[in-house]
Amino acid sequence: MQAQLGDLAIRFGCEVVGDPATVVTHVATLANADSESLSFFSNPAYREELKRTRAGAVVLREADAKDCPVPALLAEEPYLAFARIATLLHPPEVLPPGRHASAVVDPSAEVDASAHIGPHAVIGPRATVGAHAAIGPNAVVGPRCRVGAYTHLHANVTLVQDVVLGERCIVHPGAVLGSDGFGNAPSDTGWVKVPQIGGVRIGDDVEIGANTTVDRGAIEDTVIENGVRLDNLIQIAHNVHLGEHTAMAALSGISGSTIVGRRCMFGGQSGVVGHITICDDVVVGGATMISKDINEPGFYTGSFPAEKDKVWKRKVARFRRLDELARRVRALEGGEQES
Amino acid sequence: MQAQLGDLAIRFGCEVVGDPATVVTHVATLANADSESLSFFSNPAYREELKRTRAGAVVLREADAKDCPVPALLAEEPYLAFARIATLLHPPEVLPPGRHASAVVDPSAEVDASAHIGPHAVIGPRATVGAHAAIGPNAVVGPRCRVGAYTHLHANVTLVQDVVLGERCIVHPGAVLGSDGFGNAPSDTGWVKVPQIGGVRIGDDVEIGANTTVDRGAIEDTVIENGVRLDNLIQIAHNVHLGEHTAMAALSGISGSTIVGRRCMFGGQSGVVGHITICDDVVVGGATMISKDINEPGFYTGSFPAEKDKVWKRKVARFRRLDELARRVRALEGGEQES
Amino acid sequence: MQAQLGDLAIRFGCEVVGDPATVVTHVATLANADSESLSFFSNPAYREELKRTRAGAVVLREADAKDCPVPALLAEEPYLAFARIATLLHPPEVLPPGRHASAVVDPSAEVDASAHIGPHAVIGPRATVGAHAAIGPNAVVGPRCRVGAYTHLHANVTLVQDVVLGERCIVHPGAVLGSDGFGNAPSDTGWVKVPQIGGVRIGDDVEIGANTTVDRGAIEDTVIENGVRLDNLIQIAHNVHLGEHTAMAALSGISGSTIVGRRCMFGGQSGVVGHITICDDVVVGGATMISKDINEPGFYTGSFPAEKDKVWKRKVARFRRLDELARRVRALEGGEQES
Repeated sequence: MQAQLGDLAIRFGCEVVGDPATVVTHVATLANADSESLSFFSNPAYREELKRTRAGAVVLREADAKDCPVPALLAEEPYLAFARIATLLHPPEVLPPGRHASAVVDPSAEVDASAHIGPHAVIGPRATVGAHAAIGPNAVVGPRCRVGAYTHLHANVTLVQDVVLGERCIVHPGAVLGSDGFGNAPSDTGWVKVPQIGGVRIGDDVEIGANTTVDRGAIEDTVIENGVRLDNLIQIAHNVHLGEHTAMAALSGISGSTIVGRRCMFGGQSGVVGHITICDDVVVGGATMISKDINEPGFYTGSFPAEKDKVWKRKVARFRRLDELARRVRALEGGEQES
Repeated sequence: MQAQLGDLAIRFGCEVVGDPATVVTHVATLANADSESLSFFSNPAYREELKRTRAGAVVLREADAKDCPVPALLAEEPYLAFARIATLLHPPEVLPPGRHASAVVDPSAEVDASAHIGPHAVIGPRATVGAHAAIGPNAVVGPRCRVGAYTHLHANVTLVQDVVLGERCIVHPGAVLGSDGFGNAPSDTGWVKVPQIGGVRIGDDVEIGANTTVDRGAIEDTVIENGVRLDNLIQIAHNVHLGEHTAMAALSGISGSTIVGRRCMFGGQSGVVGHITICDDVVVGGATMISKDINEPGFYTGSFPAEKDKVWKRKVARFRRLDELARRVRALEGGEQES
Repeated sequence: MQAQLGDLAIRFGCEVVGDPATVVTHVATLANADSESLSFFSNPAYREELKRTRAGAVVLREADAKDCPVPALLAEEPYLAFARIATLLHPPEVLPPGRHASAVVDPSAEVDASAHIGPHAVIGPRATVGAHAAIGPNAVVGPRCRVGAYTHLHANVTLVQDVVLGERCIVHPGAVLGSDGFGNAPSDTGWVKVPQIGGVRIGDDVEIGANTTVDRGAIEDTVIENGVRLDNLIQIAHNVHLGEHTAMAALSGISGSTIVGRRCMFGGQSGVVGHITICDDVVVGGATMISKDINEPGFYTGSFPAEKDKVWKRKVARFRRLDELARRVRALEGGEQES
């Protein structure tokens, strides 16, 4: 794919600085770009790379154009404009329609003729696969699952059963959707499994990372709304509800029945307890645990930055003697009551 | 499946309030139940839903019967009784006996005629699959593994080798049992792999979550006793020993050679260092790290609840100056020695 | 496999105590060894087991030989010597050359005649599999991936595309290499996916644990250098660079574009934010979050050991009132300014 700057400017609402006939064919970093590369600049830490870049053109803010030695596309949001142009230059691979001879498709399944079914894929009873959808090699679509149009399940993905995926979703390899929730009732002789009979409902334009797990609901469904982004190795427990456009980084987890609002963002290794509600527009820091309802948008954290082990251990020891320190302050104050 | 309240009461040791001929056919939440639904009430947060429910019947404690507008089954432990009745109403799917034509079964493997072997499953040399066991699509049972009667491996599960699973276990998709432990000896030229030659021994009635990993032992076996419950994305390292009925929530991990007692419970994202011993009946909070032996049953925690970022950062800054604060208190006390 | 102590001593640079004609055939723990077992002793916690062992021989330091009731091999680094001898006694299984009839190999792929391709494996377009490499059952090697000589992909591994693996690597089951990085640009209508077009480059002698994920680079490659060791369930984000011989324990994660030096070690459940640099020879404790550059080798931690819940909650309450305590100290000091 190749494009002229002038055409890109019209298509994506940018302004050209330099020759609009400049041709770019691919994206590259500022440091390693060549004369046919499109690059972008938004993080000031890379200003020296910008000044020395040999890119064909750079997407950047108007205020940064003075440091750019090559043609530029001016955009209010350079990263967003870059994302869109990069998608044009590097379109996702389109997999050919048809079923590989080794795929196993249940006679009761409905697979659109335009869908791609990869080698060794398994499509179970009463499952449906929509137009232009793609099922990767060794992926499994269990009973009664529905895969929407243009949705792509990568290799080794498992939809267990009763999972409904909307359109244009991407599920990366190894992800498991629709596994049983963790429901166990204690008894005198050990845990009794609580049957998990709900499904998973996932909206349109959702992306789910590699080896991430989304459990089916206990009775009703686990729900992931349109536009949600889940990174790798995330746990979404039974009956969680994730609002539109919420994004979570790797190794984070949401416990059962918790409701998360729209446009929330979770840092890596963050966690949320079960049965609580988090409102829209909440940002949670990395390695942070949320243990109760959040009713106000904003940025919440609860993690400590690391220090040299010896220094850290000294602080932890102080922390452990805080009670004593407080008593000594009270004594100095001459008080008798705990404050 | 359908059942009359009177029959359920006899079978599960409950008492009926209302018409014992009331028929229920499925379970539902209090809010969404219809006249053929069985629901349950145990969490007081849902009392208003109880008062408005249109369920056919509700399982609850005698003390709550006054708030129930429909027939009820009284039970000391409503969640437990509900789990058992729900299993009757929604029995797990029974997979038909026989091998799918696409499955690859080594000639030296022994597969019971009543077992189900799904599409593209692979059964390795000298493996055994017991009566009524089920091996899901694309699952792999490696050399010398033994799958007990009525045990169900879901899709894309891997038993690497020398994994012995008892009866009535459930292993959810993507779980890996029997992978090499993380054994590395440092040398002048880098890490030298320490051969991992042990196996994994798993008792009866164990449930293992999606994408959870259980490593084989270095020399002797990794052991998981009867009735253990592991949620999704959990790491069990080599030579760990988990006692009967211990349960762990998602994203938690136990490091190598640690021995965990019976009936312990671990919150999500909790972790335990290696080579320690945890006694029976220990409960570990979420996001908590256990770094030394625990010899006394009880509830242990070590995590901080999140706060608004600005407030939290101020507290962290205070924490980092605790030494200084302690020095100032000592100065006020007129002391010269650190307490 | 069997070996005489005298031969082992010559081959691995040890010294024999006792009869050099002693034959060992396998490794065992001190406690469960028999007369043909080789065991090792390096952790003083096991000294009583050493004194009572019935092993054929024990690898240990010269200083410990006095407590050994059986023949011994003296080594400066007993664990390292043991690792090497154990590899001799228990060599990794060699899988036979050839393709299983059920494997699907693209006509444009190049597979060495000495390589093993297991049942239901899928080898994609323009992929290459080197001499004596092994591709496990149900593993997927995507387009343009290169698997080096003697490298072993276990069952259900996925190489998505453009993943280059060096020689003698081991990738454990369920690992996913080359999945899209988590690149999303915010827009008024939700997240816009940033195309991920880089690959993954992995050196020689790298070991990657079960269900671990390594994302492809956004533009340039994600890089893992020679000799790196990754445990299970680890997340390596796009454009991370891991230096030679760095080792990470389970459930840890490195965020995007972070550069990690050589010979670093990360404890379980540790995490590193994105876009930072960590120098060589850094050790990070378990459950520790690294939030900024580290320029000095050493041991860094940031986690709190757990305590009984009641005790811990009291300390957390104190922590939350630190500001107030500091104000009271200032008042006692008669000061008006915050220190």
